[in-house]
Amino acid sequence: MPKYIYLFTEVDDAQEWVGGSWDDVRALLGGKGANLGDMTRLGVPVPPGFTATTEACNAYLSAGGELPSDFWEEEKAAVEAVGDQAGKRFGDIADPLLLSCRSGAKFSMPGMMDTVLNIGLNDEITSALARRTGDARFAYDLYRRLLHMFGTVVLNIDDSAFERVIEHRKRDREVQLDSDLDGDDWREICERFKAVIRTFAGKDFPQDPEEQLQAATEAVFRSWNGKRAIDYRRASGIAHDLGTAVNVQMMVFGNLGTNSATGICMSRNGTTGAPELEGDFLENAQGEDVVAGTRATHDLSVMADRMPVIYDELHSIAQELERRHRNMQDLEFTIESGKLWILQTRNGKRTAEAEVRIAVDMADEGLIERNEALQRVTTGQIEVFLHPKLDPTVASKSPVLARGLAVSPGAAVGQIVFDADTAERAAADGRRVILVRPDTKPDDVHGMLAARGILTSRGGRTSHAALVARQFGRPAVVGVTEMELDVVGGELAVGDQTLVEGDWISLDGTQGLVYAGELPAVTADLENPFLATLLSWADEVRVLGVRANADYPDDAERARSYGAEGIGLCRTEHMFFETDRLPIVQRMIMATDPAERDDALADLLPLQREDFQGLLRAMDGLPVIIRLIDPPLHEFLPDHDDLVRDLADLKVQLQHVHTLSEIDEALGEIAVKQRYLERVEVLREENPMLGTRGVRLGMLIPGLVRMQVRAIFEAACACAADGVDVRPEVMVPLVSHVDELSRTREVLESEAREVMKERGIEVPYRFGSMIEIPRAALTAASIAEVAEFFSFGTNDLTQTTFGISRDDAEQGFLVEYLKSGIFAANPFETIDEDGVGRLMEWAKTEGTRVRPELEVGICGEHGGDPASIALCHRLGLDYVSCSPFRVPVARLAAAHAALTA
Amino acid sequence: MPKYIYLFTEVDDAQEWVGGSWDDVRALLGGKGANLGDMTRLGVPVPPGFTATTEACNAYLSAGGELPSDFWEEEKAAVEAVGDQAGKRFGDIADPLLLSCRSGAKFSMPGMMDTVLNIGLNDEITSALARRTGDARFAYDLYRRLLHMFGTVVLNIDDSAFERVIEHRKRDREVQLDSDLDGDDWREICERFKAVIRTFAGKDFPQDPEEQLQAATEAVFRSWNGKRAIDYRRASGIAHDLGTAVNVQMMVFGNLGTNSATGICMSRNGTTGAPELEGDFLENAQGEDVVAGTRATHDLSVMADRMPVIYDELHSIAQELERRHRNMQDLEFTIESGKLWILQTRNGKRTAEAEVRIAVDMADEGLIERNEALQRVTTGQIEVFLHPKLDPTVASKSPVLARGLAVSPGAAVGQIVFDADTAERAAADGRRVILVRPDTKPDDVHGMLAARGILTSRGGRTSHAALVARQFGRPAVVGVTEMELDVVGGELAVGDQTLVEGDWISLDGTQGLVYAGELPAVTADLENPFLATLLSWADEVRVLGVRANADYPDDAERARSYGAEGIGLCRTEHMFFETDRLPIVQRMIMATDPAERDDALADLLPLQREDFQGLLRAMDGLPVIIRLIDPPLHEFLPDHDDLVRDLADLKVQLQHVHTLSEIDEALGEIAVKQRYLERVEVLREENPMLGTRGVRLGMLIPGLVRMQVRAIFEAACACAADGVDVRPEVMVPLVSHVDELSRTREVLESEAREVMKERGIEVPYRFGSMIEIPRAALTAASIAEVAEFFSFGTNDLTQTTFGISRDDAEQGFLVEYLKSGIFAANPFETIDEDGVGRLMEWAKTEGTRVRPELEVGICGEHGGDPASIALCHRLGLDYVSCSPFRVPVARLAAAHAALTA
Repeated sequence: MPKYIYLFTEVDDAQEWVGGSWDDVRALLGGKGANLGDMTRLGVPVPPGFTATTEACNAYLSAGGELPSDFWEEEKAAVEAVGDQAGKRFGDIADPLLLSCRSGAKFSMPGMMDTVLNIGLNDEITSALARRTGDARFAYDLYRRLLHMFGTVVLNIDDSAFERVIEHRKRDREVQLDSDLDGDDWREICERFKAVIRTFAGKDFPQDPEEQLQAATEAVFRSWNGKRAIDYRRASGIAHDLGTAVNVQMMVFGNLGTNSATGICMSRNGTTGAPELEGDFLENAQGEDVVAGTRATHDLSVMADRMPVIYDELHSIAQELERRHRNMQDLEFTIESGKLWILQTRNGKRTAEAEVRIAVDMADEGLIERNEALQRVTTGQIEVFLHPKLDPTVASKSPVLARGLAVSPGAAVGQIVFDADTAERAAADGRRVILVRPDTKPDDVHGMLAARGILTSRGGRTSHAALVARQFGRPAVVGVTEMELDVVGGELAVGDQTLVEGDWISLDGTQGLVYAGELPAVTADLENPFLATLLSWADEVRVLGVRANADYPDDAERARSYGAEGIGLCRTEHMFFETDRLPIVQRMIMATDPAERDDALADLLPLQREDFQGLLRAMDGLPVIIRLIDPPLHEFLPDHDDLVRDLADLKVQLQHVHTLSEIDEALGEIAVKQRYLERVEVLREENPMLGTRGVRLGMLIPGLVRMQVRAIFEAACACAADGVDVRPEVMVPLVSHVDELSRTREVLESEAREVMKERGIEVPYRFGSMIEIPRAALTAASIAEVAEFFSFGTNDLTQTTFGISRDDAEQGFLVEYLKSGIFAANPFETIDEDGVGRLMEWAKTEGTRVRPELEVGICGEHGGDPASIALCHRLGLDYVSCSPFRVPVARLAAAHAALTA
Repeated sequence: MPKYIYLFTEVDDAQEWVGGSWDDVRALLGGKGANLGDMTRLGVPVPPGFTATTEACNAYLSAGGELPSDFWEEEKAAVEAVGDQAGKRFGDIADPLLLSCRSGAKFSMPGMMDTVLNIGLNDEITSALARRTGDARFAYDLYRRLLHMFGTVVLNIDDSAFERVIEHRKRDREVQLDSDLDGDDWREICERFKAVIRTFAGKDFPQDPEEQLQAATEAVFRSWNGKRAIDYRRASGIAHDLGTAVNVQMMVFGNLGTNSATGICMSRNGTTGAPELEGDFLENAQGEDVVAGTRATHDLSVMADRMPVIYDELHSIAQELERRHRNMQDLEFTIESGKLWILQTRNGKRTAEAEVRIAVDMADEGLIERNEALQRVTTGQIEVFLHPKLDPTVASKSPVLARGLAVSPGAAVGQIVFDADTAERAAADGRRVILVRPDTKPDDVHGMLAARGILTSRGGRTSHAALVARQFGRPAVVGVTEMELDVVGGELAVGDQTLVEGDWISLDGTQGLVYAGELPAVTADLENPFLATLLSWADEVRVLGVRANADYPDDAERARSYGAEGIGLCRTEHMFFETDRLPIVQRMIMATDPAERDDALADLLPLQREDFQGLLRAMDGLPVIIRLIDPPLHEFLPDHDDLVRDLADLKVQLQHVHTLSEIDEALGEIAVKQRYLERVEVLREENPMLGTRGVRLGMLIPGLVRMQVRAIFEAACACAADGVDVRPEVMVPLVSHVDELSRTREVLESEAREVMKERGIEVPYRFGSMIEIPRAALTAASIAEVAEFFSFGTNDLTQTTFGISRDDAEQGFLVEYLKSGIFAANPFETIDEDGVGRLMEWAKTEGTRVRPELEVGICGEHGGDPASIALCHRLGLDYVSCSPFRVPVARLAAAHAALTA
């Protein structure tokens, strides 16, 4: 016959009984019971008590609400033993032992099951307690709580019946708060509570303490099958047959005078992670007083002064429990008449900064392994680390103006401007500005760079605004549909609130929140030495390489400082977006004959060469993958609809001008717009995402490819001549057929040879292909015959594999799909393993079959997503590449992937 | 030592020497030599001769231009033997044997190598011949030809040297034509030709016939390595080491008087295929006279009257040769002084109609197997059969006005109209019209149906115009970019030619040609009994099922009459395009609240039910796959750019109206357009092809799916109640995730059960998925758990697998890709086996692994393409589905696939 009751002091017996496994102890005694037993065995001063096992619970429930025959004898003996330990007797009138009775299952189910406190009180004992302590209020407050909990938990009486009694009394006494009621009030309330019980349960509240305890124990067992508990288990995936244990424990009181107190204590600083006690306490108070917030708490340092001995005891207990649990502990304690009791210990909550420092410190202290330190820190915590944030103490109290998509994390605070040129001018004057637009276009980029943050009313996670913002680390909130913009009038309205140009605004790009006004921000600490240490450990563990997507020398330097091992993607078309280049690019696009186009290309050559030199220098000794242009050409020209509207407006204006010179001017303007419109219409495509992009443009305008290749190799030769170890790798975008690749390779090799001959210097280089079209993945074996490396462009690959346009979908049906659970995750955030992942696997397998030394990486947005990085690890890729700001995240995620694989 | 020369009469020896294979005989003697030998062995009167083998040629060439030692002795003996057979002597002055010397390789290389005629003439013999025949013109004409050919072929003298002599003589004699020159002229020309040879070759023309023959033989051998021949072989993939044979044969003359003649004869009628001799002949003439066209030829029936004996002989020879070659023969013959000589026989050219009849007749006659009959007829010939065509005799002489994409075959002739309403009115008045538009939209469909043909200046192979035209069998030419349209002014201009509304125009949709004016057309013969027989044989052979894509009852009936075994795709959204439904559909789309939308759906329900009833009745006993709506919603609304322009115009107009009522009217119009524009902008997507289409719309508006399912099952129940054997199959478009499918299935099953319960009748049905998104193919195993059948939508699958938008590409870079050979074939015409085919294979394998009874078909445009049908056969698909007009093509293509697999 099993033993149904274990004293906290018998935890070793329980462990022996289940065969030694702590997990099995937790199954038998529940998490709380096991923990209390464990603390007891460590000598931590835990109020004495015992645990009725989950086996007892299951026996009770399966017998239809009948306790095993000897259960009550066992429990009575246990109560006796607790009395011995406490030096008090249960039911004793002079100095009664009061007990709590709490549920405690294997897995925490907070608030789901029931508790009864102060068991052991009755009319006589309470009256004696009041007399003895001289504090009727204290005694009858305890008794009314017992009556209330017993009535609701054990007897199933509706809570409101009890609440109504208290409300009634307060009205009679014309007071607002429970604390305004005195001992007489509570005594009177206790009388009425007993009447409530008699009325609703049809019987009296049991005056016999043993009867109270038995009824409470059974009620807690029953609560395992309460509706709330079943629903919770269903939602959390907890098995229904585990049962709950019941913990019966001596009540202790922190409100028995000035040498009593209650408080919480963390074994290390939860904000900074520094190895020092941190916490609050309140003298002559119960835990509820702390929760009610009616009295100001003191810092634990005050306790060190006022109760130095107990403080030292608490300190050493905290350290012991931390060693025991190998993690920072959060303790609840009560001091009853100068005696310290520990009521609970658990892993403490902490900031990201504290998590990193604690993990590194504990590993250094030998408390945990380095790999465990790595696994404790989440990539989300690294992200929080990397971005400045609005001061949470202020933000949490400020009203949110509007919500949108959180597309680029961090905080940004500045004055509203509504166009890029104004943003640039304001920034040049040293002002902090936020660029607010319906959406952004390439010719807004200079303003986006000048702004502290970007706010748009339209656009999704991969809109131009979002991509550029992430790329350059500008916090951004996009798709704020509730925001109405009048950029011409210079107004922003949300509901009836209107802001105008120059007003201050604050963005939380991590959560997608917009605040009116200038909120204080807390800056990121990239130099944190603990983070540096942790990431260096990650580097030792990870198998995947980590590179950065960087288009400018500045980016490349930043990426390298964050630990990037090369550039996985340089988007050469981004270089075209700069203000001084846009006119040249437009000239190239508007060119109607080859000579005119060659002219524009010749003007771009030195600019591109300069960019590439900067990149190659910044990545001295590391590979730099330069992708040939992948331009949506129409993006470089004015918007089609704007042109149509402008032309209509101009024609209206024409009605109102009269002098010849005015007419000439208007007609001239019309002619210019008309020419743009014609070109835009020629370039316009029904589905630009599936149109003349990437290598397709290179096939149509080989001069463009030749110019870029020349710029790359002129740059590489110039750097090499200066002693830089250059490793350029040229990548072709949007390949769907191997012939596109081999023809591009021919152009490349002839041009590269020519440049190297001109410069009289040889530089090593590689040639590779984006794999971002399903057909490229499917025909990877052919592609690998020409390509020396593959780089998965999972943005486009996801689009075509799903047949979903990112931008359209994230504004439209994809939102519904995610809401209704058709897609478990947004495939543009985390790689879809079943579809896209299968293509990647096929491509990797087929590619390396043909060319075993093939290098395979990923440069899509997914390269910075931890779940996708884990997939890349499993697929055996060589590296991931992501935006510079995500490099630290990727380093840790790659380590996690290696550790869990 | 091999034998280098075979007399035609020794063909059996040659066959024995090579070991019996006729192919080896052709390798040894060349195609022509083998054929002449074979005719000789059959007793066909072939002018006697011999063949110098390809082995002799190779020996000659590899010895650096040295004939094997005994070669000339062999050839001399052969000439002797030919003389014996002919009863004439080579070099005889009284009755000289004249010989031709021609190349003849294993594979025909027409015009690539050289020929010398009339070998054996010299000054003395020619003079004697002139005297003996009394026809100096005849004799010296022969001699000058020998001199000319010998000079150019053997001695490598430039042709112009000889031509100049003749031109000079004609100028002297003031005549235009060679035939105006007389005997004296030709004698004089012969003298000057000899002088040319002396001058350019540095030696005299050899008067010795044997020397002539030897030189001619060597020259022919050498011509195997001439530049022209090498280039030809390279282009045709003919091996360079085969060598050519040389055929030396007695010259015969059809111009020796009224009982001489020359002509051609086909063993069956090349136009109709009827089993009757067909041909032309010319009395007292050589072949060249027929070619020169200076004299009118007679039909062979005339010969039956004038030379009945020879006609009969010719008839029986033609039949014998036809039996020999198991194919219709095209013979060249010459009658020399009452004696019939057959110079050549080969398979005759014929029309598609003749090909079908001949194949069927020959199989019926037992001459060939039915399978061979099937393989002789190409799918292209079936296509020609099915479409009316412009009378080629007229069209070939008419100037082409413009060229475009041939997107829907057949001929259409009518008067130009520029809008759909006018087209409808004109057709109602019994006029034949051609609808000419920049492009077409759904609200043009009534006009497209009313028109005989469709002509657009924009659009590609899968533009709306092209799809609708093919669907309804309207000939169409689209993408005629050189055509400028002013639809408002009612003008069509190509270059400086302008046509106006009402002008006649003729379209050749098979070739993509546009003609001004009313050209005569030849109609298709669908009732042709031979075609019906051939296709019934195809049905016995093929493994693949053939279904039709049909959206209307009329289509379904037509499809069934063409042999469709069910409907593979009914596009329910096409039903929405009809004039009377468009307003309801627009109401549904413009609806801003669900009640309004449900209202519109309720109005559509009876219309859809009626359509489905018609389809199910037409396909009594056969499966009907109904695809749930796959609508590009914006297509049902006015064009975005038009609205923007209209609004701009209206605003300009507003400046010019002055009365209040005019202003009111203008503002009202602006408001309506504005409302449309707003809705269009909401629905507008950057990449509609990757947007809210197919099942995605159904996920957003379940009411739409429910309405369609209800219509399907109400129709099925109604038909079943009438005793129709209904087999509806409901298909979901654009599935990328199995959950889309399972949710749709839930809606379907609940609605279907409800309808069947209401009607008190059960109908069988199946539920399936389009596979038209790569992810659907990649996750086919999951999809097959929910879907009972797959249907490959290879149009979309090709788009997403390649990342290419059809319409954009076919106007843009795809044209370049095809031109420059990056893509060997247009993947929208023929399935790309390496990419799309691999996905299909994976989907089929994975799908049937999970559900062995899974039915797998294809319903994309490729379903009518023979190469794609062959791929479907290899992949083991169950059926192909194509437009009704292509069903016969598909039946034959499926048989071909089965026969060649």
